[in-house]
Amino acid sequence: MIRVGVNGYGTIGKRVADAVAAQPDMEVVGVTKTSPTYGAETAIRSGYDLYAAIGDRVEEFERAGVGVAGTLPDLLDAVDIVVDCCPSGVGEQNRSIYEAHDTPAVYQGGEDATVADASFNARGSDESVADADSLRVVSCNTTGLSRLLAPLEETYGVEKARVTLVRRGGDPTETGRGPINDIVPDPATVPSHHGPDVNTVLPDIAVDTAALKAPVTAMHTHSVNVTLETAPTATAVRELLEGEGRLFLIPERAGLDGAGALKDYAADVGRPRGDLWENCIWTESISVQGRDLYLFQNIHQEADVVPENVDAIRALSTDLSREESVAKTDEALGIGLDSLLSDGGSTRNPVTADD
Amino acid sequence: MIRVGVNGYGTIGKRVADAVAAQPDMEVVGVTKTSPTYGAETAIRSGYDLYAAIGDRVEEFERAGVGVAGTLPDLLDAVDIVVDCCPSGVGEQNRSIYEAHDTPAVYQGGEDATVADASFNARGSDESVADADSLRVVSCNTTGLSRLLAPLEETYGVEKARVTLVRRGGDPTETGRGPINDIVPDPATVPSHHGPDVNTVLPDIAVDTAALKAPVTAMHTHSVNVTLETAPTATAVRELLEGEGRLFLIPERAGLDGAGALKDYAADVGRPRGDLWENCIWTESISVQGRDLYLFQNIHQEADVVPENVDAIRALSTDLSREESVAKTDEALGIGLDSLLSDGGSTRNPVTADD
Repeated sequence: MIRVGVNGYGTIGKRVADAVAAQPDMEVVGVTKTSPTYGAETAIRSGYDLYAAIGDRVEEFERAGVGVAGTLPDLLDAVDIVVDCCPSGVGEQNRSIYEAHDTPAVYQGGEDATVADASFNARGSDESVADADSLRVVSCNTTGLSRLLAPLEETYGVEKARVTLVRRGGDPTETGRGPINDIVPDPATVPSHHGPDVNTVLPDIAVDTAALKAPVTAMHTHSVNVTLETAPTATAVRELLEGEGRLFLIPERAGLDGAGALKDYAADVGRPRGDLWENCIWTESISVQGRDLYLFQNIHQEADVVPENVDAIRALSTDLSREESVAKTDEALGIGLDSLLSDGGSTRNPVTADD
Repeated sequence: MIRVGVNGYGTIGKRVADAVAAQPDMEVVGVTKTSPTYGAETAIRSGYDLYAAIGDRVEEFERAGVGVAGTLPDLLDAVDIVVDCCPSGVGEQNRSIYEAHDTPAVYQGGEDATVADASFNARGSDESVADADSLRVVSCNTTGLSRLLAPLEETYGVEKARVTLVRRGGDPTETGRGPINDIVPDPATVPSHHGPDVNTVLPDIAVDTAALKAPVTAMHTHSVNVTLETAPTATAVRELLEGEGRLFLIPERAGLDGAGALKDYAADVGRPRGDLWENCIWTESISVQGRDLYLFQNIHQEADVVPENVDAIRALSTDLSREESVAKTDEALGIGLDSLLSDGGSTRNPVTADD
């Protein structure tokens, strides 16, 4: 069993902890919080040992009636690997602590690429990352782009990808963020950093990105154009993408028309926290004009990097191939949304009213 | 076992079906949909027999590969009671069908009060509703007000309640609704219909309401003033409300600061669909100035009427007392959010770091 610690039990950390706990070859040794907010309570309810991320705050936890098993150094001594899920920039500050404890670390995409030996996406990265002692799982948007561009590059060749990212302003819990009522170029400079970030895992793909920020909290939306080196049919592209486990092609005619309905659907099928671990691709939008492929996809910013973190742990700790790891992760989590309605009944036996 | 049919497996209907299925004394015989959207798939995944709400649409379901067990009349013949969860106004149209099948019916609060023999709230209604052959569960806002006002009236006497309802514009799935960027008086006439609706279950309480509509989807927010007949302390009111099973006093100092965090918390504690069946009262807001009580409460419009529907079924079908039914419902669903943090540790033994 790979003994895993999660430093920073927040939006990403709590999801990573649950995903790790669901794996047959991993266990969660403990998680950290900086203060005894409701997340601390969630950790305890979930059966995780809680550690104070900051040593001199132990008393604050105890005053709130929330017991801690120790502090971050204690956790690092007890684990094989740590997943850093702290806010952007804090991971970099934590690096020396992890190195002092000789603990391999997985970082999140909010950190600069230099934080780790290599950047990681389970679909995009090549096997050379197996030599790394630390990995950085690329951000939610970069993860979503890498999953999409890797199979397109392999099958058709990508001449150039051009993507507009309409990003959510903040997460549902982030009361203080904006915009309230605007579409904000963010950054206003084009191309944005997302294209180069894709190149940390797929160095040979030409990709330009432009990023906006909108007054929504549920998901990011990407408007994707990829000029391919060959000219497939839209149907062929659709079938290619349907074959990718972490791409969910939203069924047509199912009444799913936006992020609200997607999250509702995820809750309906029993996903914890209504999480969508897959890229959600609007099937109707897949079209090809000459060699230009177009499509829209939605990315659940709280969730899509979660299975990638699990695979990054295995890349640092085991000799499993990428495919074996992904298969293990996806089976344990139940990744791969299918739908009774996804083919509109065209290949199904009709069920009679007597059934 | 009480055999229950749910006519209209939408936002409320799917939640009512799951809540009924969780009861030890009830079973879901089947649910209806008007068309084979993703909700139809959810019904099948959840193990419910699906019926076409509209007879001539059976073929449409079959073309989509979604088998139906029959149509609404077939369902009505197979059940002891039907819960109508159709859009507002459709319940009234369905009444003659239910009566023709001699099937007792529970309606939702979007219907006029005249649709049923009596209006119902498990905390507010008196036992006389046991004589009814049909009940109307009052709307989400009226449910939230009735639960709050009933104990205040019993304990302190209510001279007059004045409430501003800041309502959500639409549900998360309702892409077509507004406002996008406004606070809309809705209705602009004051008082709104909500006060009189409270009087359908609590006829003797003087209550005026004014209603607005805001660009949010997660929850309604009520700003409540109640002029009491006596002048309790805020602490006494807090303790009174803490004793009510379907009122959740949001723990202070837990970092819960809005509807986004409340829903996140609900998902964290494992609530299906992140549902908040309880009124969520902002504990810090409870204050008393002379005989004037003030507080804010949030109401999850998709969820708070769900346990009330379960109790309405028992009121029509059994001789159980209200208290027995509520206890059964709440135990089966796990209603009554408590919190490790709710008392700030003041009455808890601190847990040491070694535990």
